Parts: sequence; C-alpha cells; structure tokens
Amino acid sequence: MIKVGIIGATGYAGAELVRLLMSHPQAQLTAISSVSFEGKAISQVYPSYYNLNDMVCENADQVVDKCQVIFAALPHGLSQELAKVCFDKDKIFIDLGADFRLENEDDYKEWYGGEYTDKELHKNSVYALPEFFRDNIKGKKTIANPGCYTTGVPLAIGPAVAKGLVETKGIIADCKSGATGAGRGLSQNTHFTDLNEGFHPYKVACHRHTPEIEQTLSHLANKPVKITFVPHLLPVNRGILSTVYAPLKEGVTEEQVRQAYEEFYNDEYFVRLLPKGQVADIHNIKYSNFGDVSLHMDNRTGTLVAVSAIDNMVKGAAGQAIQNMNIVCEKTGLEIIPPAF
Amino acid sequence: MIKVGIIGATGYAGAELVRLLMSHPQAQLTAISSVSFEGKAISQVYPSYYNLNDMVCENADQVVDKCQVIFAALPHGLSQELAKVCFDKDKIFIDLGADFRLENEDDYKEWYGGEYTDKELHKNSVYALPEFFRDNIKGKKTIANPGCYTTGVPLAIGPAVAKGLVETKGIIADCKSGATGAGRGLSQNTHFTDLNEGFHPYKVACHRHTPEIEQTLSHLANKPVKITFVPHLLPVNRGILSTVYAPLKEGVTEEQVRQAYEEFYNDEYFVRLLPKGQVADIHNIKYSNFGDVSLHMDNRTGTLVAVSAIDNMVKGAAGQAIQNMNIVCEKTGLEIIPPAF
Amino acid sequence: MIKVGIIGATGYAGAELVRLLMSHPQAQLTAISSVSFEGKAISQVYPSYYNLNDMVCENADQVVDKCQVIFAALPHGLSQELAKVCFDKDKIFIDLGADFRLENEDDYKEWYGGEYTDKELHKNSVYALPEFFRDNIKGKKTIANPGCYTTGVPLAIGPAVAKGLVETKGIIADCKSGATGAGRGLSQNTHFTDLNEGFHPYKVACHRHTPEIEQTLSHLANKPVKITFVPHLLPVNRGILSTVYAPLKEGVTEEQVRQAYEEFYNDEYFVRLLPKGQVADIHNIKYSNFGDVSLHMDNRTGTLVAVSAIDNMVKGAAGQAIQNMNIVCEKTGLEIIPPAF
Amino acid sequence: MIKVGIIGATGYAGAELVRLLMSHPQAQLTAISSVSFEGKAISQVYPSYYNLNDMVCENADQVVDKCQVIFAALPHGLSQELAKVCFDKDKIFIDLGADFRLENEDDYKEWYGGEYTDKELHKNSVYALPEFFRDNIKGKKTIANPGCYTTGVPLAIGPAVAKGLVETKGIIADCKSGATGAGRGLSQNTHFTDLNEGFHPYKVACHRHTPEIEQTLSHLANKPVKITFVPHLLPVNRGILSTVYAPLKEGVTEEQVRQAYEEFYNDEYFVRLLPKGQVADIHNIKYSNFGDVSLHMDNRTGTLVAVSAIDNMVKGAAGQAIQNMNIVCEKTGLEIIPPAF
Repeated sequence: MIKVGIIGATGYAGAELVRLLMSHPQAQLTAISSVSFEGKAISQVYPSYYNLNDMVCENADQVVDKCQVIFAALPHGLSQELAKVCFDKDKIFIDLGADFRLENEDDYKEWYGGEYTDKELHKNSVYALPEFFRDNIKGKKTIANPGCYTTGVPLAIGPAVAKGLVETKGIIADCKSGATGAGRGLSQNTHFTDLNEGFHPYKVACHRHTPEIEQTLSHLANKPVKITFVPHLLPVNRGILSTVYAPLKEGVTEEQVRQAYEEFYNDEYFVRLLPKGQVADIHNIKYSNFGDVSLHMDNRTGTLVAVSAIDNMVKGAAGQAIQNMNIVCEKTGLEIIPPAF
Repeated sequence: MIKVGIIGATGYAGAELVRLLMSHPQAQLTAISSVSFEGKAISQVYPSYYNLNDMVCENADQVVDKCQVIFAALPHGLSQELAKVCFDKDKIFIDLGADFRLENEDDYKEWYGGEYTDKELHKNSVYALPEFFRDNIKGKKTIANPGCYTTGVPLAIGPAVAKGLVETKGIIADCKSGATGAGRGLSQNTHFTDLNEGFHPYKVACHRHTPEIEQTLSHLANKPVKITFVPHLLPVNRGILSTVYAPLKEGVTEEQVRQAYEEFYNDEYFVRLLPKGQVADIHNIKYSNFGDVSLHMDNRTGTLVAVSAIDNMVKGAAGQAIQNMNIVCEKTGLEIIPPAF
Repeated sequence: MIKVGIIGATGYAGAELVRLLMSHPQAQLTAISSVSFEGKAISQVYPSYYNLNDMVCENADQVVDKCQVIFAALPHGLSQELAKVCFDKDKIFIDLGADFRLENEDDYKEWYGGEYTDKELHKNSVYALPEFFRDNIKGKKTIANPGCYTTGVPLAIGPAVAKGLVETKGIIADCKSGATGAGRGLSQNTHFTDLNEGFHPYKVACHRHTPEIEQTLSHLANKPVKITFVPHLLPVNRGILSTVYAPLKEGVTEEQVRQAYEEFYNDEYFVRLLPKGQVADIHNIKYSNFGDVSLHMDNRTGTLVAVSAIDNMVKGAAGQAIQNMNIVCEKTGLEIIPPAF
Repeated sequence: MIKVGIIGATGYAGAELVRLLMSHPQAQLTAISSVSFEGKAISQVYPSYYNLNDMVCENADQVVDKCQVIFAALPHGLSQELAKVCFDKDKIFIDLGADFRLENEDDYKEWYGGEYTDKELHKNSVYALPEFFRDNIKGKKTIANPGCYTTGVPLAIGPAVAKGLVETKGIIADCKSGATGAGRGLSQNTHFTDLNEGFHPYKVACHRHTPEIEQTLSHLANKPVKITFVPHLLPVNRGILSTVYAPLKEGVTEEQVRQAYEEFYNDEYFVRLLPKGQVADIHNIKYSNFGDVSLHMDNRTGTLVAVSAIDNMVKGAAGQAIQNMNIVCEKTGLEIIPPAF
C-alpha cells in the first residue's frame, strides 16, 4: 500500500480525493491537512463521510512527513515551495493547482501574476494529461495535474488537431461547467437562488485556462494555436460539457475524422468515443473518471463540432490526479461505474 | 377591446398566450381551442389558472368565428389552411408555428417536408421579428411569428451583421434552451431524472431553425449567410442563452461595435443592451418579454462574442406574438417586470 | 396615486416589493433605501430591473420624508423606532419584520431576545393576516405583516380550527420552503452545491415562527393552541408547501370539513380551495399572491391532512404587504396570473 | 464468485442493481432480462454504462437458468410464478417488487388487488429489512426486499417503537422522495417542467406502502400500529427524507431516546445515527447504501421528531437487495462512499 496524503483536503478537489482514495485498493490515505479546518475532522466539514472517514486535519508538514505521495489542492502560488520540499525528500508531489501547468513563465506572469521561484524544479516537472502525454509522466516526481476545462477541451478536439484534420485558426471552445467548479467558497454567483434557473457565461474570452488549453493544442499541432474560450456556469452540481468548433481542412471526410479519433483513443480506458448519432451528456459520466466524446459534422459550413463531457471534480481534478498517481506508481483504483441517473 | 382567440391553447405556447392575454389592457381573450382537450377547461390542464381562467376549449372554427385576432400555436403543416380562412374573413392571423416563416419554399420542403398550398398567401404574409422588420409588419394580416432560437441568435449578432462589422462566414451560434422549449409532450429527454443534473447538445448542426436564422441574417447582411448552429438542452424551465461567435473584420474596435448596437437598439424597448462588464443571464429576463444582450471582444483571436438571453416562451414565442399584435393593432400590454429571483 | 417607499429595498422582500409596486395602478414607488447599497441603483443589485427601475437607494429618513406609505423589510429589532417616527408623522407603516407580530411581549423576549420600546405603539398596531383578521386592519397605521410560514400554516388548518372540527392538541405542521426564504445573504446552507440535490429539516421544533402561528390559531380556536412545527429547505427558488396534520373530532365528516372551508374562503380572492382529488403544489402559485389549499381525510387514523401552497416572497411577504396596503388604503394591484410552468 | 442475474434490468431498480453488482467483489453479473428491451444492450438504454457493461437483455428463463441468485425488479403480480420456479430449482430469489412483502393476504388484496397463488411459498418467504429482521433472513430462499418508504420510515421511528418510548397511536410519517422513485416510465408528474420548481404531496394517506410500514412497526411494537403516511415528490433525482412524528410517552427524556437508538443501531454499519445538533440530509447519503438518522425533541408538545435520509434507489431498493444477498450468502460489496457534493 502506498501512503498518500492530501494538502488542502477540505476544498472540493481535496474532499473528492478523500472520497476516491478511500476506495483505492493500493493506496492508504494516511494524513490530510487544511488551513481553515486544522484540528477538525473532515467529516465535520463534509457529513457525507461521517463514520467512514473521521480523519482529523493536520498541517502540511505533517502530511509531507507521513506520506510518500502528496496531493496538493491549493490556491495558485502556494504549491511551489511545497513541491520543492517534496522533491528534496524524494516524494511524489501531485499538484492540482496551477503553479506547474504553464511551461512558459511569461504566460504564468500574465495570467496568474506570479513568478517561478525555482526554474530547475519547473523543468523537471511534467504537465500530466495522460491521454496526450502519458509517456512523459512515468518516473516524474513533480506532477502538474491539468485543470478541468483544460482537460475537457483537448479531449474533444485534440485528436483532430494532432492529426491535422482541422485548421488551427478559428477554433472556438464553448464550455459549460457545473457549480462545483466554482469551489466551496461562498459567492453571489453560486448562491442557490442566483444560479438555480439561471445560466450565463463568465470571464468571456479571458479565463485563465486559455493559455493552458493553447499549450496542449500547440504541442499536438506542433505549432502555435490560439483559441476563443468562453466558459458558462450550469445549474447542476457536476460536469463540464465542452462544445468545440473547428474549421475542417478542405476535403476531410467524416470517416477520416472518426477513424482518427478511434485510433487516438483506442487504448484509452477512460475516454469513450460515442457511436455516431449519440451525443455526449454530463449525465452519463458524473461521479466517474470517464470522458465521453461525440463527433458531429456541419458539412454546410465545413465545421467539425466535437463535444466532450467529463466530471469536473473527477476527470477534471481528483480522478485525474489519481490516474496520474497510478501512472507514476503503476497502480489502479478508478473503476467507478457512472450511475445511470 | 380587441377580441382575440387562441387555436392550440393547451400547448405551452398557447397556454403562455392565455397567461399574457389575461393581463392585456386592450385585448379580451374570447375563445380558445384544443384538439386534445376539447370540452375541458384550460385550468384543468394548467391548475395555475384555476379560478382565474376556466374557459373551456372549443374547436378552431369557433375561435375563428368569435375573434378578430387569431393566434395559432400548432405543429407545422396545420396553419396554412387556417391562415387562408382568416385571410378571407379579413381577420388577423398570427402563426406561432413554422408554416409562414421561410420565404423560400425549397427551404421549407428541405427542412420541414411540406409544400406551400397557397403561394399568394405566403407572399402576403410577413416574417415578424419586430426589432429587425417592424416596418414590414404594420398592416399585414398573416403574421409569421419567429421561433425561439431564431429570435435569440439575431438579437445577439444581428446588429454586427447589419452594420458590416463581422465576417459573414464562420459565424457560430451555440445556444442553450430551457426545457419548456421541448413542449408539454412527454419524452425521455425531458423526463426529470434524465434532464436534471444533465446537459447535452441535440440536433447538432441540423436543427430546423437553421435556415430561418440564416434568412434573417442574410437580409441584414444583404447577402447569403450560412452559420453553424448547435442547440443544447438546459436543466431549467425557461430561457435561451445564445452565445454567438463571429470573426471581426480587420480593424474593427470595441467602441465601434458597442456604438453600432446602441444605435440599433436605441428605440427598442424590449432589448436591453447591457453595460460593458455585464453578461446576459437568463435569470434576469425570465417570465418577461425582454431580451438582454452583452458584448465581449476576444482581441487575441479577433472574435466578437455576442450573447443574448430571452425567455423562450415569452420573447421567443407568446410575448413576441402579442408584441406583433400590438404592432399590427397598435396596442400594448407587455410591461411585465422580470422577477429578481 | 399613493406615494410609497421601501426601507431595506435590496433584501429579497424589499426587492420583491419593488417588482410588485412597479405594476401597481394606484401606487407610485417614490423612494427606496438600503444600508448596504446606499448610493447604488437597485438595478445594480438586481439586473432584472435594469432600464425598468434604476432608482438609487437613499437612506431611511429620506424614504419616510417623501412617502405616505412606508414598507420596512429589516432584520428584527430595527423597525420599532421607525414605526414610531411614522406614527408620529401620521404615515402608514407596514412592517415585514417581526417586531410587531407577537402580541405577548414575553414571547418576543423568549424567541427574539428583545423588548417592546413603546408599548402603546404595540397596542395600536395590528397583526395583518387578511384572510383571518381583515376587519382589524382597516384604519390602522402600524401594520405587522405576517411571516411566510405563519401565513401558510393558518391558511391550511385555520378554518378547521376556527370551526372546531379538529382537536387543538396534536397538530403537526411539516413545512417545506424554497431557498428565497433564506434571503440574499450567503450561507453554506444556500450554496448551490449544498442545497441542489439536497433536502433537510432545520430548526426542528424551535423555529421563531412557532409562537406566531400559535397566536393565530389560538385566536381562531379561542383557546391556547400549541403545535409541532418543522420547516425544511427545498431546492427550488420559491414557494412554501405546508402539510398540516390535525386529529379530527369524533364524527366529523369530509363533507363538513369541505363545507367549512368553502364558507371560510368563499369571499377570499387570493385563496383557492382546490376541488377534491387535487393537491396543492407550489408550482401553481409561484410569482403570484394566491394561496392554494387542498384537503385530505385519513379515515384510517381520524386525521385531517390540510395542505397549502404559497409563494413565500409574494403571499408570504411582499404581496401580502401590498394586500394590506390595499386594505388600509382601499387600493388594488395584485392581479398577477401565476405562470403555468 | 456467485453467479447473479437480474430480471427486469432496464427499470431504475434493475439498472441500479447492474451498477452496484459490477463493483461487487464476490458476485458476477451473469445474465439480465427485460421485456421492453430484449435483444438490446443495457448500455443502449443507459449510456452511462457504455463500454463498461454492454450485456444484452435476454428473457427471464435464461436468467434463471444461468444464475444462482436471481433479483427481480418487476411490477407487482409478476414475481410469484418466478419465485416458485426459483424455489423449485433451489435458487435464491430476491424480489424487489411487492408480491411477498405483506404477510396478510387480505392486505395484499386490499392494496394491490391480487391473490397469493402459492400460500406455502409465502410462508417460506421472509420480509428482509436487515436492521430489524436480520436473524430471519439467513438461510431463506425467497426474499421480499422492502420498498423505499417502507425502509425510510422504520429506520427513523423503529427503535422508539420497539423500545416502547412513544405512543403507537398518532404517528405521522411525512416523506419526501426524489424523482427516481417514480421510475423510468414517462408521466406528466415527472415531466421536467412540471416537477422542476414544483413540490406537492401525492396519494395522500392512501399510498400502498402504508400497510407495509404498519406491518414492520406492529412487529416492533408487538401490537397493531396504524400511521398517517403522506409522500411528496421532490425535485431531485435521488433520496427520501422521512420526517416522522410520534407522541412521547409521559416522562421519556431525550437521553433515553438517544440511548435506545444507539443500542439499536450500534452494530448496524449502514445506519449512521447523527450526533445531537445535526440533521439528516439526503445530500449526504446519495448513491450509497447508508441511512442517516437524526433525533429531535419537541418538549413543548411532547413529540419525538425522528428523521431519516436514504437513497431510494440504493438503501431503498437495489443496495438493500444486495445487502440481503450478502446476508443470505455471507458476502459483501457495498462499501460505497457517498460523495460530498
């Protein structure tokens, strides 16, 4: 059994890690920490866990000391120092925050307003979107776990970009996220009466996940890609649906597109390419690590419409983090069946 | 008082007409009809109206006989004959169905599979989207009331197209509709447990509203426009949010765009152009005839993101039908304040 | 036109008063105040009102000066002084808070922890639940507008208690309220992801509305009545459903019960006694001032199950306050048709 | 591995059995059947299972032939014959329907309108609510799995009844169920726009679960118990909250009540008695087999308010059926952690 710990366990991503790790056959949740709830049991914050996991939140140092794999789910800017400590102690650090996601420090400065305190550590880290970069992940110790939109959009359009079937200019990602994406912190936006029976975009064309998505697509295209990315807030608890539009290259047929995706995702257990005629729906993947992808051709305008559905808290956060742990440590534990309703 | 009647009063659009007409200061709801519920009171179908309107459903002939203005909310194909009867009797016919919306009969054949039985009548009818075609509406007797998406998308992007600020190629309309859009008929899609906590696109790039939206935009652009249109089903009762993407023409500034919209909507009571920094939200227009529009520039990619929010049952159906009656008959009665929550 | 003003206009009850008063044919909303948003437009707080009402919040003194009828929607303890000022200036004061609701000062001390600063003023005030105490309301200047549960429960069981058809011992009120009942203030309970797909009781058998309900039922029974009252939080925006259980007196028949209610509510426009076989549903009264009541007999156990549905923000707060103004000033303006869906 | 099969796998209870059995460490789902979808894959009906379980629905005979434990999730009246076949073939039959739940055939006739075709078989069957009747279950071959309300209500009030702390006359069970309780079949009640933002009681004091609840409570009280039972339909997917009111016997204290429940549920893994001050919430048990119970005293009226929350599809149907299989076969497989949000 691997001893694993969570720093920032009382936020939504941390709490979801608790849930998933409790069922992991080869990992033992050994310590958790929280700044806001130090000394309190996780089950006092989340009564769902009452009697099942009443672990008490300690501090970050204790988690690092007791564990071999450390998950951090912290606001950006707070992971760099911790990652360094873990690296020096030869522990695996899986960061669910943004500090190690962007390769280009200038992007980080522009979108997050911080600096890379240890540039060497950043070079040794890896951006861990398994379906696209699995080979880079194995053996690494500082793991940047992707964000939610930044998982959903590439899952939808990545194969078409990688195989050169679509133009890289003019890609539009229209995404819709459930409310857990906004976290546990209270806000007017997530006040029940404001969100319920409401629906609106936010951070239109200026959301921080933009450069991260572009980084992934640029790697796949092997040239710089810029996209228009607009997130919306859905009145549901979980799930991100990404509807991605890309101009098809002249002459590309539906069969070519479908075949490219089939090849790409053939060995990917957690990606389900839906049969023709089906549409991806967040309903079908909630609470699980699966990502569903459906493909649609608009032949009237020469546009590929690729749709993905993921659970933002699982494949878009905690599940993918465990998937990455499994890759690094060659372990399993994510065989959750999504409920039918 | 104008005597008004509704044919097809027990569907959602018909029932919403009942609600709105009950508050109209210059119209008197005189007769209603329903095939499924003939002989039953509307309040037996919709208990919300109990004691307030217990009118009994008659048949279509009775409605035509008793009324001066006839609203029809019927499945496509059933309005043409009725419209002819009304025309011959010199009555105003306002059709909430699709039979008179498309100018080009070939489009109707392709997307709806029917024919125009009286081509002369079609020539004398008018497509009544007031904010764009008000001058054509006055004095007409056969009024084609636009569909819901076909109101929302032009409200968002129409002014930019009309003023030549965006390219007419490459426009993407990503729309999200509440469940009333699917009507009162039962379906697996609108079964509570299927839709609640779910979200998915449907009829991707093949929805019947596509040629109707293109017809409006082509008129505004004064040249043929084709778009990619993808609707999604939202787990809310009411509202359509349309997020429309269009490539900006070289050199067009945010100020130019905003000024164009301000000029366009300056005298339009029912369109609210939101101040910079605000986003359109279906929450703010529900149960009312208002359409909110917000504008956003993606300067990184040269894309205009224009967003509109309407209530699909009011501005997208029954309210707009009454707005059209008011234009034809020069009456009012739509001053509903949208509730704050 | 009566000049009316609202003190505390940016809370939910105040904002709902704004909406309803904008459509009142004989009242002119003249001034509004808010402590939190003084100097800001109400439409900046509630974008639904944008362009329709952009009144700027002033302070309470300005509202009192400019208006003839003053509505106050304030936390308990803050109305007494204002009520006195209004009384001395011969203005009508309608209090949506709790300060004047309880006749017995000891109850107020026990449940709210405050004192009656001007006992004479309390004597001159009136508890204004129109369907039960209309005759007392006319001509009064200090009006205590009932709370939401305290309207819903008596509407359901009041007639049976008043006519002596049920025992006054053993009455159970199991109530379920939409989230607007918890107000605009942020709380973990009304965080979207906590409430959505959740449901739970709160303040079990210790909610402050208990003595107020008992006061009304005691007046109707003409003897002291104690009840068990348990509220629950529903994942909807609006509406309270009250399921009230009372032991039937020996030999009382369904016909007697129904007839008693019919007599009681015969002239009450805003109460709709539903036909046998129907059930009250919050769906059918939302956004309106109507209260629906359905009656059910459990002959196996000799229990009357009386159910009422009201909109907590309208009949349970702002609508009833206007109904009271209309009684005092003999005006109208509440003919809102509840939407069908 | 035990070979298990499901008859009626495409209804909600059957489909939930599929989900849970796929994760069971000692059971192998071997065959499923469906009348409506014979020849189709379960994943065509429930796309959540796509790629994970694409078993094709066969007929009931095939399921019986291939399996050792047979779950049946059928409309009432259809299980008796199947149960007999299984009994004769020495197979374990777990019935999620109502045919074997009522001991008294007269009750079955009155509430369901059918007869017991094989009275001997009924005598050999067992009503399997594990927390109350575990000892009777072991070794039985015909297992009547309780219904949802009939699990929730006894979990809340059973211990108080069994220990004689409350009167057995005057018990009120006010229950609220999520929409999955109404099944997969389409109905106006579960049409999204009807249920969303709505809430109402149904089958007031005449629901078929009444005699089943009374049977359990009568066994616990060791004398006949009659209750008033009113179910309501909640606009959520899953969960039943049961708020149960019972008159406390003279002199019974909160400590006595709490201690009685602690003793009763001490060894029950799936029942979580919540600490004082907490309330049961369906949010905390969804998708899991746990039942949360909270206790509240209304000392003003001498009433115990006991609240339970279960997932109607798991502890109220499929999960409990597996729990019963585990008891009969001494197996496990239900260690699902309820998600926190």
